[in-house]
Amino acid sequence: MNKGQKLLKKAKKIIPGGNQLFSKRAELFLPELWPTYYKRAKGCEIWDMENNKYFDFAGMGVTTAILGYADKDVNQAVTKAINNASMGTLNSYEEVDLAEELLNIHKWADQVKFARTGGEACSIAIRIARAATQKEKVLFCGYHGWHDWYLSTNINSNSLDTQLLSGLKAKGIPRGLKNTAIPFEYNNLNSFKKKVNKYKNNIAAIMMEPVRSTLPKKGFLEFIQKTAKKIGAVFIIDEITSGFRENLGGIHLKYKIKPDMAVLSKAMSNGYPSSAIIGTRDVMDEAQDSFISSCMWTERIGFVSALATIKKFKRLSLQKKLIDHGQRIKKGWSQISKSTDVDISIAGIDPIPQFNFKKNHLEKSTYLNQEMLKRGYLTNTRLGTTYAYNSNIINGYLDNLYEVFNQIKDFEKKNIKLPLKGKVRHETFKRLV
Amino acid sequence: MNKGQKLLKKAKKIIPGGNQLFSKRAELFLPELWPTYYKRAKGCEIWDMENNKYFDFAGMGVTTAILGYADKDVNQAVTKAINNASMGTLNSYEEVDLAEELLNIHKWADQVKFARTGGEACSIAIRIARAATQKEKVLFCGYHGWHDWYLSTNINSNSLDTQLLSGLKAKGIPRGLKNTAIPFEYNNLNSFKKKVNKYKNNIAAIMMEPVRSTLPKKGFLEFIQKTAKKIGAVFIIDEITSGFRENLGGIHLKYKIKPDMAVLSKAMSNGYPSSAIIGTRDVMDEAQDSFISSCMWTERIGFVSALATIKKFKRLSLQKKLIDHGQRIKKGWSQISKSTDVDISIAGIDPIPQFNFKKNHLEKSTYLNQEMLKRGYLTNTRLGTTYAYNSNIINGYLDNLYEVFNQIKDFEKKNIKLPLKGKVRHETFKRLV
Repeated sequence: MNKGQKLLKKAKKIIPGGNQLFSKRAELFLPELWPTYYKRAKGCEIWDMENNKYFDFAGMGVTTAILGYADKDVNQAVTKAINNASMGTLNSYEEVDLAEELLNIHKWADQVKFARTGGEACSIAIRIARAATQKEKVLFCGYHGWHDWYLSTNINSNSLDTQLLSGLKAKGIPRGLKNTAIPFEYNNLNSFKKKVNKYKNNIAAIMMEPVRSTLPKKGFLEFIQKTAKKIGAVFIIDEITSGFRENLGGIHLKYKIKPDMAVLSKAMSNGYPSSAIIGTRDVMDEAQDSFISSCMWTERIGFVSALATIKKFKRLSLQKKLIDHGQRIKKGWSQISKSTDVDISIAGIDPIPQFNFKKNHLEKSTYLNQEMLKRGYLTNTRLGTTYAYNSNIINGYLDNLYEVFNQIKDFEKKNIKLPLKGKVRHETFKRLV
Repeated sequence: MNKGQKLLKKAKKIIPGGNQLFSKRAELFLPELWPTYYKRAKGCEIWDMENNKYFDFAGMGVTTAILGYADKDVNQAVTKAINNASMGTLNSYEEVDLAEELLNIHKWADQVKFARTGGEACSIAIRIARAATQKEKVLFCGYHGWHDWYLSTNINSNSLDTQLLSGLKAKGIPRGLKNTAIPFEYNNLNSFKKKVNKYKNNIAAIMMEPVRSTLPKKGFLEFIQKTAKKIGAVFIIDEITSGFRENLGGIHLKYKIKPDMAVLSKAMSNGYPSSAIIGTRDVMDEAQDSFISSCMWTERIGFVSALATIKKFKRLSLQKKLIDHGQRIKKGWSQISKSTDVDISIAGIDPIPQFNFKKNHLEKSTYLNQEMLKRGYLTNTRLGTTYAYNSNIINGYLDNLYEVFNQIKDFEKKNIKLPLKGKVRHETFKRLV
């Protein structure tokens, strides 16, 4: 048992579930063998508890580290902030700078609120939308966090199964929230129209991720925007995963969508805890008629890390790199699949590419992660690209991947079960179409 | 208009309410004149946008900075963490270290979850309690954040007026949460018993701050603990404000109270965003049957800042200093009041002392803040003590305070209205008895 697994064993006794984020559970990557914990990371390299070094092709910090781990410019800004004290009785002036910057990027928005995590930012957006409309129901499409307003979807049944989270247990949600959150299917206008017709007089908000593993069909986002306006619902775009990758700011800008609110986090601050809710004055002003306030939201690192990330994003035209790396990886996957005759389907926006094995996905991806780990790569079948990648690193990854695909093909040919050293990995969030 | 006020004017146009925390609003201290923003801070000194230096007797970062601003040991740990990358695809091993440390301090607890802000930590505790009991209602006493579960109290009426927040607007909360959160009064067993009798079959949790501006009456906390056990409710102690001051960990330890869960934040990490939910195995295990997960909770700074703060707290026996400073300040207030004949009432635990002017509190405290600011002190009538104080600094503060009290007395004697240069300050959270 490696040191990480030993520590995980201890962790599971004293931390429910073993860690703080479902998507970072060792079982989702490689049960019994995943290094699980890191000592340090730099660029796209990460060192485990035994000082083994890996290239990170497994998400780069749940897709946060678009500039790479421990980016020197972002860290310089953070270091300055903590030397000058990151918390004070007075406010951080950088919150005003960041608000201005985000409004400069998103011309349709007038006001900004800040939080620390993505889930609470979604929760704030919903509170404001409900306050602004004096209505209650939320139509949504996508993953929007752990809060009661969202999990309440599963009070009746496993409605979230149609979204990203299959078999989610939703114990602990008050029954009075039944039927307040209603999911609709991505790229399915009929699903959306049906829900709108059923609830149209009491819809406070329509919240959605603008892109999923596939892109929006022509007119899909536009129709939702139009409908929201028509029925007086607040249209909220959740950009926590999609923002700051294919373009500066939310990807809705690229699709020329004008929401009433948008939620930003993750890549915005290169992995430092920070999130933002932006919106039109009409809607955001209603925040003042509710009580939305938290001490830790005033802390300085959240603002300066985002300011430094955005500054560098602009300087580098970072979207070009993130897209280019993603396309290169997708192309490599496609070629490897073709030449080894191991069938996969490829999806995702270019900066968050993913593939599925068409047959025995979980077994094969477990074997893949196991063999790639030996070769010095953290892998999963969904990853986030980073500025820290380069052609050599990507080619190295693809060369090794090719060899493992070949092994998989060989075993398949000979009808031999893949030699897994631990259990098959668990299913992670599904990024369904 | 000072630079801070100019920036605030801009902020109010683009940030609803102007900032992220009600308690940091300039209007609560000194309307039109408060410096509002800080450039840097060190120890108990803080510099505004015009590089004016003040001693901070206005809360030390909403009572977070028990070691002082930009503490060198905590900052050293944070700097190391960010140099080694604060976010990764793998987990931070320090989360296990911190869980062990908190359990070592709180022997009654078996498991720990982490979050980033106090409000979300309370919300997590309530979710787990509801999941564990399969009941819904929460009896509470104190301030527990901005989330729906708590604000729903005000759906019927302004029930929170009996707690800390007077006249709170609670728009945007689903009506289905009506009557799920029920307040009881501190140190009032009848109030508590009445609510228990009314709802006893469906009480998931009893949540409370263990101390308020007064200490618990003999037997008060014990009776609540006993009742919770009897009716099968999860007893949750909210230590966000009270923890890590009069003792290492939650103050409930000092009162020999054994809750089922406790929530920690603020002073635990000297102001870095970090919070923890600790509890018995029975209760905490239920977290696995709900979905409570957030990317930013895995970030490293939250863990290492708390570990470093706790380590230094132990090394210094910090509680002695925090109590001693508080007692010295309370004694000074008392003497000043007596010798100037300006009546005040003094309350609060020693490390968070407060006073109220018995007549015209708001006018007088506004004048006090105005005059003390000129003399180089950020003040308010409630503060948090810090290791960075010393006798000289406290004496300097008290000497100046004495002179301002004398001025107040003079104006009062001559029946002259206090010469305020701006408006009277707004009322802040009331820490009611």
